[in-house]
Amino acid sequence: MADLQSLNSVLADDSIELEQSGSILKIWLNRPDSRNAMSLNMVKSIMNVFNAIADDSSIRGVVFRGRGNHFCAGGDIKDMAAIRAEAASLGSNKPYIDFNRQFGAMIELVDQAPQTVVVVLEGAVLGGGFGLACISDVAIAHQDAQFGLPETGLGILPAQIAPFVVKRVGLTQARRLALLGARFNGNKALQFGVIHEVAENENELEQLIETTLEQVKRAAPLASRATKALLHRASSNESLSNLLDDAAVQFADAVNSAEGMEGTMAFIQKRKPSWADE
Amino acid sequence: MADLQSLNSVLADDSIELEQSGSILKIWLNRPDSRNAMSLNMVKSIMNVFNAIADDSSIRGVVFRGRGNHFCAGGDIKDMAAIRAEAASLGSNKPYIDFNRQFGAMIELVDQAPQTVVVVLEGAVLGGGFGLACISDVAIAHQDAQFGLPETGLGILPAQIAPFVVKRVGLTQARRLALLGARFNGNKALQFGVIHEVAENENELEQLIETTLEQVKRAAPLASRATKALLHRASSNESLSNLLDDAAVQFADAVNSAEGMEGTMAFIQKRKPSWADE
Amino acid sequence: MADLQSLNSVLADDSIELEQSGSILKIWLNRPDSRNAMSLNMVKSIMNVFNAIADDSSIRGVVFRGRGNHFCAGGDIKDMAAIRAEAASLGSNKPYIDFNRQFGAMIELVDQAPQTVVVVLEGAVLGGGFGLACISDVAIAHQDAQFGLPETGLGILPAQIAPFVVKRVGLTQARRLALLGARFNGNKALQFGVIHEVAENENELEQLIETTLEQVKRAAPLASRATKALLHRASSNESLSNLLDDAAVQFADAVNSAEGMEGTMAFIQKRKPSWADE
Repeated sequence: MADLQSLNSVLADDSIELEQSGSILKIWLNRPDSRNAMSLNMVKSIMNVFNAIADDSSIRGVVFRGRGNHFCAGGDIKDMAAIRAEAASLGSNKPYIDFNRQFGAMIELVDQAPQTVVVVLEGAVLGGGFGLACISDVAIAHQDAQFGLPETGLGILPAQIAPFVVKRVGLTQARRLALLGARFNGNKALQFGVIHEVAENENELEQLIETTLEQVKRAAPLASRATKALLHRASSNESLSNLLDDAAVQFADAVNSAEGMEGTMAFIQKRKPSWADE
Repeated sequence: MADLQSLNSVLADDSIELEQSGSILKIWLNRPDSRNAMSLNMVKSIMNVFNAIADDSSIRGVVFRGRGNHFCAGGDIKDMAAIRAEAASLGSNKPYIDFNRQFGAMIELVDQAPQTVVVVLEGAVLGGGFGLACISDVAIAHQDAQFGLPETGLGILPAQIAPFVVKRVGLTQARRLALLGARFNGNKALQFGVIHEVAENENELEQLIETTLEQVKRAAPLASRATKALLHRASSNESLSNLLDDAAVQFADAVNSAEGMEGTMAFIQKRKPSWADE
Repeated sequence: MADLQSLNSVLADDSIELEQSGSILKIWLNRPDSRNAMSLNMVKSIMNVFNAIADDSSIRGVVFRGRGNHFCAGGDIKDMAAIRAEAASLGSNKPYIDFNRQFGAMIELVDQAPQTVVVVLEGAVLGGGFGLACISDVAIAHQDAQFGLPETGLGILPAQIAPFVVKRVGLTQARRLALLGARFNGNKALQFGVIHEVAENENELEQLIETTLEQVKRAAPLASRATKALLHRASSNESLSNLLDDAAVQFADAVNSAEGMEGTMAFIQKRKPSWADE
């Protein structure tokens, strides 16, 4: 079982901060001076944390939130300068390729994480920050948050983000958002399918987070992991009948598991299941 | 051509009831005491009916509705008890696997049915009932209907349902709905893309059903079947140019068919086509 | 670089008209007497234009709009009469097949066009016109526009259109729209995900077009093309990690390109990039 001390030891620096409350791990993006622009160390730290908790079913939910009332404004300009210098000295653009691909690898990892991933979106939710929002299981935003994919306006591409935006909002919305580079607020983000819930103010935002985390804890630890994996398989190219065959075996296993029995008993006895307060 | 008597003969028991009005077949889920919980006999009867009408183009629409102002509350607990006993005596969980997979087979069959499938959603639309709603061509709900995927909270999985929920509402909404097990009403179901239309009261619901069935009957019997099959192929992995080549042949056949000629004539003569009142 | 004169020379007749303003090419559907019904010459002319500008990055946006306050009412009845005669004399329905498939080929070409494609939707947006709307990057409609897929009511199929409707609005909405043949206005089209923005009146429509074209011009010419191609790949069956590997290389190239440097400089200097007024 993960403890906060051992998780803290995998962080590259203080660009993210961890906070644990029972089965919920909170990851604070902690570079408020640059609106939590995504640095290489941030990317590495996030990957290290998710790798450390991958097999740990005591961590059931992960919340991403930004310090200083911004979520994440995209890639980091200082890192880019360092990469430019490295590329120049190497005479190759490999450093740029690696930097960009690394971000995509982090997004892939968090997308496939067995935990239920919640993002709390305030202020800037741009570029890479928008990409990170797009792979959450639950996205809650303040109505004044500013969403957007500014890349094409800068002469570059939302390269690692594009596939996740398409998966999130469909090709119809993704084409417009990426090609126009339009900015939009939380209400529009809800309409476009980027997020699930929008709060009118700070109070409402905090309440939505609390309700959501109660719901996350209400879901059985193992059933929840298995369900998330099934949903990912359902959106892949796997054959439907294969998937349903496998799902039936998983169903039977779950029904006969300790979790399945406790869940059914709790339902019959009209009480919360044992895992709901952990 | 199917007649009601021969269709009634394929029912396993009275857990569903059939009603026919011209080209429209109504299937009543008829276990009001258990909020129409889906029993094995229900599953079998539904499959038998759809197999019996598969090649019968005189049945053009099928309506699912629940007796007692509930649609369907999910799997049946009594069946589960019987399966538990069977599994114990066999020393194997195969009975659970078969039970679960059977439900998925029914969902697959109804999803691919050539008829236009309409669901009328009131009261409980939970678990398996939610899954059945997700494969309709037209879903109409009362605003007070209660939708949800409670499985993860019970320590089990929405196993046979997951792929159809993903296809219905996209991965973004499916992840949140399945992982949080949240309950929601008809207005939210409309917003999430689960249903197509919501009625504020019983009167409006009846009117929406009537209008919908008029529209179903307005569509040409064979063109309608061919179109539904095309739409299914369009959401598979089939190559686009193959599909368009085939579609062009089907278009040419339809234009030159009796239906195509009657449809064009009726349009020019500003009258309803012959099939509209059947 | 394309000039209007050479583009005009590829038109089959005056069924479409071209207008150029800097990097934006406007295609007027110009058969107002038949609500711009899609004729074979229209289809050919549109394909010729898109082939002529395929490698020309000086044309960055293409706007489709109909003369006479209609977008496009679908296929052309006069063409159909000519095809009927041809089919009769050949004793084969090959002319119908070719006619239908040609329309699909045009839709495929415009869908994959490297330019940002904007459609302005007024009046009739039916059948083939609906299909054309479904492959735009940005769709703006007057709230009184009339959308619909009337094919099944006519005894025929939305054959070449079906796959693009599914891609546009998802299988859930596509099934209902195609099977019921329902008509709906701009507000519903927004709700169903057919379009992106709806205008309450002519003035608002003109303003939305203007704002959109400013945004199109704000996006860098090459980055914009590369992004659109990435988005298309993201909705194909290509493996995600392949795509992300490629995207990282494209990102690195873009950062080091003249466009990427101008984009970054303009951002730092808080000015518009050089391409924004072209």
